[in-house]
Amino acid sequence: MVGIVIGSDSDLPVVKGALEALSLLQIPYEIEIASAHRLPERVREYAHTAAARGLRVIIAAAGGAAHLPGVIAAHTPLPVIGVPVGGGTLGGLDALLSIVQMPKGVPVATVAVNGAFNAGILAAQIIGASDPAVRERVAAYKEQLGREVAAKNERLQALGVDEYLRLKS
Amino acid sequence: MVGIVIGSDSDLPVVKGALEALSLLQIPYEIEIASAHRLPERVREYAHTAAARGLRVIIAAAGGAAHLPGVIAAHTPLPVIGVPVGGGTLGGLDALLSIVQMPKGVPVATVAVNGAFNAGILAAQIIGASDPAVRERVAAYKEQLGREVAAKNERLQALGVDEYLRLKS
Amino acid sequence: MVGIVIGSDSDLPVVKGALEALSLLQIPYEIEIASAHRLPERVREYAHTAAARGLRVIIAAAGGAAHLPGVIAAHTPLPVIGVPVGGGTLGGLDALLSIVQMPKGVPVATVAVNGAFNAGILAAQIIGASDPAVRERVAAYKEQLGREVAAKNERLQALGVDEYLRLKS
Amino acid sequence: MVGIVIGSDSDLPVVKGALEALSLLQIPYEIEIASAHRLPERVREYAHTAAARGLRVIIAAAGGAAHLPGVIAAHTPLPVIGVPVGGGTLGGLDALLSIVQMPKGVPVATVAVNGAFNAGILAAQIIGASDPAVRERVAAYKEQLGREVAAKNERLQALGVDEYLRLKS
Amino acid sequence: MVGIVIGSDSDLPVVKGALEALSLLQIPYEIEIASAHRLPERVREYAHTAAARGLRVIIAAAGGAAHLPGVIAAHTPLPVIGVPVGGGTLGGLDALLSIVQMPKGVPVATVAVNGAFNAGILAAQIIGASDPAVRERVAAYKEQLGREVAAKNERLQALGVDEYLRLKS
Amino acid sequence: MVGIVIGSDSDLPVVKGALEALSLLQIPYEIEIASAHRLPERVREYAHTAAARGLRVIIAAAGGAAHLPGVIAAHTPLPVIGVPVGGGTLGGLDALLSIVQMPKGVPVATVAVNGAFNAGILAAQIIGASDPAVRERVAAYKEQLGREVAAKNERLQALGVDEYLRLKS
Amino acid sequence: MVGIVIGSDSDLPVVKGALEALSLLQIPYEIEIASAHRLPERVREYAHTAAARGLRVIIAAAGGAAHLPGVIAAHTPLPVIGVPVGGGTLGGLDALLSIVQMPKGVPVATVAVNGAFNAGILAAQIIGASDPAVRERVAAYKEQLGREVAAKNERLQALGVDEYLRLKS
Amino acid sequence: MVGIVIGSDSDLPVVKGALEALSLLQIPYEIEIASAHRLPERVREYAHTAAARGLRVIIAAAGGAAHLPGVIAAHTPLPVIGVPVGGGTLGGLDALLSIVQMPKGVPVATVAVNGAFNAGILAAQIIGASDPAVRERVAAYKEQLGREVAAKNERLQALGVDEYLRLKS
Repeated sequence: MVGIVIGSDSDLPVVKGALEALSLLQIPYEIEIASAHRLPERVREYAHTAAARGLRVIIAAAGGAAHLPGVIAAHTPLPVIGVPVGGGTLGGLDALLSIVQMPKGVPVATVAVNGAFNAGILAAQIIGASDPAVRERVAAYKEQLGREVAAKNERLQALGVDEYLRLKS
Repeated sequence: MVGIVIGSDSDLPVVKGALEALSLLQIPYEIEIASAHRLPERVREYAHTAAARGLRVIIAAAGGAAHLPGVIAAHTPLPVIGVPVGGGTLGGLDALLSIVQMPKGVPVATVAVNGAFNAGILAAQIIGASDPAVRERVAAYKEQLGREVAAKNERLQALGVDEYLRLKS
Repeated sequence: MVGIVIGSDSDLPVVKGALEALSLLQIPYEIEIASAHRLPERVREYAHTAAARGLRVIIAAAGGAAHLPGVIAAHTPLPVIGVPVGGGTLGGLDALLSIVQMPKGVPVATVAVNGAFNAGILAAQIIGASDPAVRERVAAYKEQLGREVAAKNERLQALGVDEYLRLKS
Repeated sequence: MVGIVIGSDSDLPVVKGALEALSLLQIPYEIEIASAHRLPERVREYAHTAAARGLRVIIAAAGGAAHLPGVIAAHTPLPVIGVPVGGGTLGGLDALLSIVQMPKGVPVATVAVNGAFNAGILAAQIIGASDPAVRERVAAYKEQLGREVAAKNERLQALGVDEYLRLKS
Repeated sequence: MVGIVIGSDSDLPVVKGALEALSLLQIPYEIEIASAHRLPERVREYAHTAAARGLRVIIAAAGGAAHLPGVIAAHTPLPVIGVPVGGGTLGGLDALLSIVQMPKGVPVATVAVNGAFNAGILAAQIIGASDPAVRERVAAYKEQLGREVAAKNERLQALGVDEYLRLKS
Repeated sequence: MVGIVIGSDSDLPVVKGALEALSLLQIPYEIEIASAHRLPERVREYAHTAAARGLRVIIAAAGGAAHLPGVIAAHTPLPVIGVPVGGGTLGGLDALLSIVQMPKGVPVATVAVNGAFNAGILAAQIIGASDPAVRERVAAYKEQLGREVAAKNERLQALGVDEYLRLKS
Repeated sequence: MVGIVIGSDSDLPVVKGALEALSLLQIPYEIEIASAHRLPERVREYAHTAAARGLRVIIAAAGGAAHLPGVIAAHTPLPVIGVPVGGGTLGGLDALLSIVQMPKGVPVATVAVNGAFNAGILAAQIIGASDPAVRERVAAYKEQLGREVAAKNERLQALGVDEYLRLKS
Repeated sequence: MVGIVIGSDSDLPVVKGALEALSLLQIPYEIEIASAHRLPERVREYAHTAAARGLRVIIAAAGGAAHLPGVIAAHTPLPVIGVPVGGGTLGGLDALLSIVQMPKGVPVATVAVNGAFNAGILAAQIIGASDPAVRERVAAYKEQLGREVAAKNERLQALGVDEYLRLKS
């Protein structure tokens, strides 16, 4: 239901976060390596056939001059989520601007630098826009997030800062 | 079906692009002024009741320390699209980073600085993820975009650069 | 008297500097984990009740799209000090701009990236604005700072650069 | 009660916002031109005598290599609010970093680029930390802010976007 | 011999500089509007057939998430020159990074923001790498550049600064 | 046929990528250390005699205030490729801007920060602009790049993400 | 005694500030247009003969990839002051980094973006390092600066903010 | 003859480069720790008495909101060289802008981030502006720099790239 595309296997450790989030919310996905610059025909074919193959959202991650999400968006009416991969000498600002500053008519839904986990959550939210069961799983996940923060806070109050940090490390 | 929220009426001229895109793709919308910092209770209530009131996507536009999209995302399982409003002395980089760099678990689908039109297209794509009629309208729109570029190119070939620019201005 | 809020326990090592400064100046404090995006109701309640509970200043630290200080400021008339937490691929510029560029009417008193110690000093200065005993402790601390620099300089003059560096490392 | 210092009379139009905010909240103030680089002895004397003369907060505005707030902070235990003045070719990023990135022990409470109005609000909040009457005026001002946003929203709902914009311009 | 591609007719005034430089150096060219995101099939076909149609260099200009030069480079073994079009709120830094930071194996020869004239000179230099007549025209142009600077200097020495500026304006 | 110049032997590990690319595409090259600031006469002589010695393209790599490529371009009609060397505290943005923002009339073909391998590919593309045999080798290399991506994708589909990552590390 | 070099007559209005400062401090100067990229031989000759011709300091102003100050510094043991000329789409950050980030052994004394007046003052300070009469003129100028600020302050105290601004405009 | 001031002993390892350069060129120096924010009276006294004590140039190094060089420049007619100390999360851009963007009338001669060695060379060049013996030592040093580059190049030509790198590491 969600297609994930990366341009290089070096982006795989970052994009694992998206798989994690999708698994957590029980959204099926597929993942593919297909570079916009090195294997453009495959990217084009992938994007062209995505809707017909039953995909509803595409997540694309790339670093540097990160064209992959935009190129996919050029070839499909499906929503495309872009994940800027950071870590080079420019810190990912290049990837962020290359993904987010798309021209009129062809948006890419951009998340934070290295924010692949959130790309998975956003994909679920997009599916949940029309699927109440998924939306409820998203809502439950968000409540769980809140409970975790509350639990950490209780632990901090009980232990104090120094003990909390000692046990955490 | 799509809710649009701005924090200040000074953002209204920018956000008009979203209304235009939604009208073009026949997606109903509502628009509201409700600042995350000046009227936070209203933002919270708006976000909390959004799904129940039938909204499926929320678009939020803000400049500077642009917290509005993120604060809305904190209160709803619906997908939230953020539009960084630029134009201040920092050129919108502040708004872009304030919107896109959201923490784990609470994404905002960010578009380009002042990219409100694209926020409208993206909202339609999100609805189209599960609504084939909307998806077809998006696809038709994208084909229309291509035809317009092709028509401009034909005109350029026919007129030459100087005449093209003379007639355009 | 000073409330400290962090959005994630990963910010605890940075924010320890604030505790240190407040202890040094004998200002009582409390500390709490309560994310603006993951536990927003708690943040809101915390801020709403802060003045009544006797707090006079709130320090909030956050990284990335660092909304926590601004969201707290939206819910309290107390002064709020924001600490941008740096270290991600964008170096903290995202957190700095997200905290400092607040809209008209709702300021956040921003300190340096990772400047939690200074947030504690600033909180004491704010209390000292109306409390001469605290102000005198701040003044004494600042004189102590100057004496430490002077002592290091004397040591440098006595030892020379190479010996100074050898003994320091 | 609040001292305002600018380094050049070219910063006066920006800093007028602070006067406006302080007047609104009925906080008395004085204003002075005294450059950290061109009239340093006066700045030093001003800062040294500030607390004794009854000032409780100092606001300092400067552009470029904006040292004025930090130099004042070096000479007083009072809280110092810094306003980065933007507008040069670097957009105020130089002034922002020169003001906010203060070293350990000597904080400056930094507000947004050109955010002099908010500097005035923050000064009132600092005074309000120990003065309930001022704090109530701050709280009332913030409620007023919310009511203005709500009124604009009602107007927008009544008039529609196009009519709203037509009447506004 | 040189193909020029722009993604939007709004880039035509910038790219005119390239036509000017190519005319000056007597290099034949063609120009085409064909967006990487709005008319991707045409871009692909253009790039695929470029070498066979006798093109030896391609110049592509684009702003924002400027993917056009990189997408063309993905489909041709010819050298591709990229011109970042500036002027938006981010000053062209987005276009510059989107064009220059290409991944391993697929370079784009990037020139300055709005540097279309230099793209034309560079195209001539590339042709001149193997065509001594063109290389001589480039060398003659560069000498002419030097003579113009020298003539301006003579005029400045003769007139003095004030008179020079008066006559220039 | 291709001349490579570096300003310091500390840039040698970065520039090795260019040698690798040129060897792969069977383009002969020479390499030289000759700083624009420390050995300017040598740089000037090198550039002046380059065309006559049979060079057709020059690659120059430099960091910081990276003037070497521009200084070489000032002394030759040959195309000059600039490689910004990154890694200092400013991440290579200084070198990138120093190389790419050349004035009217004297372009430098700039590649990505640390993109020396791509500088080699671009040099081959420039030679290939008039040499069909080299152009075919470039085309074959690009096809090979695509096959490698496709092979990695097949491996990923066969192994799954976890096993792929395990075997890769 | 001071040589001023600009690469283009478009920089003349900016550099006039340096002439003004030098005249004010009674330091003789000469000015010359001589581009590092378009007329490099002249720049080299100018720098090589500068000390022998009696120059003691050189001021060089340039924008974009601003190599002129560094290239001059490569050819003379005299101190070279660099003025980054701002105003392009990148605001002068390109010129600043191109001038200030010089490699080990070849410094350029960099002043603020468009800071030509200060370049003149700095040149006088450099001459004044060994010439007490010039140093006294610098000291007198600085005192005059302070008196002007003090006079403006007196005027502000006498007139009040509104009247001061009304009379100033 | 040259005074060196640092605000913190943590800047000592960076500033050692200046001592090295000054020793190399046989320029006597003194070094002092004296923070603009923590020990401002000492900085002021140091700067006020510098010329009378026989100093001819002052070098000041600082990081973050690096006010030290500018504050010294406010109190002396001597030329002041500023060294931005980098390494924090913002990479030294904060220190660079805080030092270089000084207001009209009070320049600081800024060198590269962490460029303390070059600050020493520049100090010698300033002294050499009026002292032919020092100027000759600077010229000899620069020639030596060139010879070192030439020697490295000869070694590279003799050994080849791989052997050169092997022996260097």
